[in-house]
Amino acid sequence: MTNRDPISQMAADVAAGNRRALARAITLVESGRADHRADALALLDTLGTDRQALRIGLSGTPGVGKSTFIESFGLMLTESGKKVAVLAVDPSSARSGGSILGDKTRMERLSRDPNAFIRPSPSQTQLGGVARRTRDAVALCEAAGYDIILIETVGVGQSETMVAQMADVFVLLLAPAGGDELQGVKRGIMEIADIILVNKADGDLKAQARRTCADYAGALRLMRKRPQDPEGFPKALTVSALETAGLAAAWETVQHLANWRKESDVWHQNRAAQASFWFHEEVRLQLMARLTEDSRLRDQMGKLEQDVTQGRISPAAAAARVILQFTGDQKR
Amino acid sequence: MTNRDPISQMAADVAAGNRRALARAITLVESGRADHRADALALLDTLGTDRQALRIGLSGTPGVGKSTFIESFGLMLTESGKKVAVLAVDPSSARSGGSILGDKTRMERLSRDPNAFIRPSPSQTQLGGVARRTRDAVALCEAAGYDIILIETVGVGQSETMVAQMADVFVLLLAPAGGDELQGVKRGIMEIADIILVNKADGDLKAQARRTCADYAGALRLMRKRPQDPEGFPKALTVSALETAGLAAAWETVQHLANWRKESDVWHQNRAAQASFWFHEEVRLQLMARLTEDSRLRDQMGKLEQDVTQGRISPAAAAARVILQFTGDQKR
Repeated sequence: MTNRDPISQMAADVAAGNRRALARAITLVESGRADHRADALALLDTLGTDRQALRIGLSGTPGVGKSTFIESFGLMLTESGKKVAVLAVDPSSARSGGSILGDKTRMERLSRDPNAFIRPSPSQTQLGGVARRTRDAVALCEAAGYDIILIETVGVGQSETMVAQMADVFVLLLAPAGGDELQGVKRGIMEIADIILVNKADGDLKAQARRTCADYAGALRLMRKRPQDPEGFPKALTVSALETAGLAAAWETVQHLANWRKESDVWHQNRAAQASFWFHEEVRLQLMARLTEDSRLRDQMGKLEQDVTQGRISPAAAAARVILQFTGDQKR
Repeated sequence: MTNRDPISQMAADVAAGNRRALARAITLVESGRADHRADALALLDTLGTDRQALRIGLSGTPGVGKSTFIESFGLMLTESGKKVAVLAVDPSSARSGGSILGDKTRMERLSRDPNAFIRPSPSQTQLGGVARRTRDAVALCEAAGYDIILIETVGVGQSETMVAQMADVFVLLLAPAGGDELQGVKRGIMEIADIILVNKADGDLKAQARRTCADYAGALRLMRKRPQDPEGFPKALTVSALETAGLAAAWETVQHLANWRKESDVWHQNRAAQASFWFHEEVRLQLMARLTEDSRLRDQMGKLEQDVTQGRISPAAAAARVILQFTGDQKR
């Protein structure tokens, strides 16, 4: 064994598919400490971006059977020889006190599978921090040789949009709903869903699942086909995670879309656009962090925001005052 | 007549309902010149925000009969004693060479109505600039005593989201569509529409308009009711702008929603949230303007963006370099 520095060693271990090294690497990128951040950037830099996985965004509210779905879907994939990573994005998990035990318990068989890697959401509340950490974790899982990365979200706030900006294919999981008791999907989700899966198409709910699926298929047809979609997409299907029914068809549908996008170069364009999006987002975030790390400026912004919401000053004039203060401070 | 400075005089004329003064004031806020901008801010400051109109966002692609609708709807409102302003937002109008003649021609009767004020889109291509100009124009029309402001957009790019962020109620105008020839609405629009009006419910298209309306009503029911909505909203209705049928019902629906929001304080909360949104947007825009006004920094960002999209550097690391350069420059 050569005498390497710890970061090179960690990179080599991650690239070799060592799960403990991957877990430690994700802990490193999750850290808020400045020296850890520098190490994390060096690690990501060493690993590079040569390996690409299929990144599947998966959203579903509690109660739709998401854990059962991930367990069944994930096991089907590992049984066919794929390596599967599951990353959970839950900006609210800080409130519920973390979900490490929860995630491993609710996907018991998958978590013991040597070809699967499950990582729960870190206890961070800021969406900006969660986004960066998740992007880094995705990059680490790709470098570790995983074929499929499931990025799971409960869809609190803007988390679905965020996940869509790092996924190649976005899947929405729904439960059957009947007639007047339709709880409805969150607005905005129809915009990003590539595939809608109506789960629990089993037992008494089978017929209801089919009706729900037909309803959503109809709603999807009322929306314009996106240029990055082949004919017939976005698509709605029924599945039963419990009886593992329809999962193969769902996987075929995901693959069909992914292959179409790869062949038509949409895949590459999409990843480039996502990288560009995150670059501008990072510039904005880091610039705003500079702005708000000065407590005097932060106080001024808070006061100006109050004035703005109460109509005492226009948004543009208030913003100009903030910028003047900021650039004045910077020059000092 | 007292001897006032030009801005105070303009403010007094606008507040008195002088249409020519209003038109000149909008030209002032549209100007890109720094001295004009200072005058514009002084003017808006003088006028204040005491008068509030009902701001209706209206979106519809070419061919749905938007001009005919605005003409009929606007005349119905002015005949009932309301003062109506129509502001067009069309980020693409620069390409088509401006639409001043177009707007006045396509709404011939309304444009001659003394209780109506029609202002076409300025020939600006930047959405940031269009947003600021439109917000300022809305504020001027409110100060001029207009009761209803229709903010019209053809829905190119992000313009609908922008209009929704300055409207109290958002209306989507659609044309009847049949069976397989459904062209579909732009994704994302379902998220912001409060009321969908299916136009051209007349002659041969009457039955088709009703079916289209029922389809959209069904699709809307699949989405979650927003907390700011009363029971039954978002709502879909049919209208015929040509035969002026259903317009009174559409206006009643708009009023019902507006009144509900006023009584439940959603109105005020919404306006405060919009002001806060535009404040942060302005801080971001003005800060980014500072960043890109330095040509060296702009070039560096362009190069880094290429590296990012080609996977040579991570978005976070690239952004950190930009910020370092920027704050270093500022300190010099």
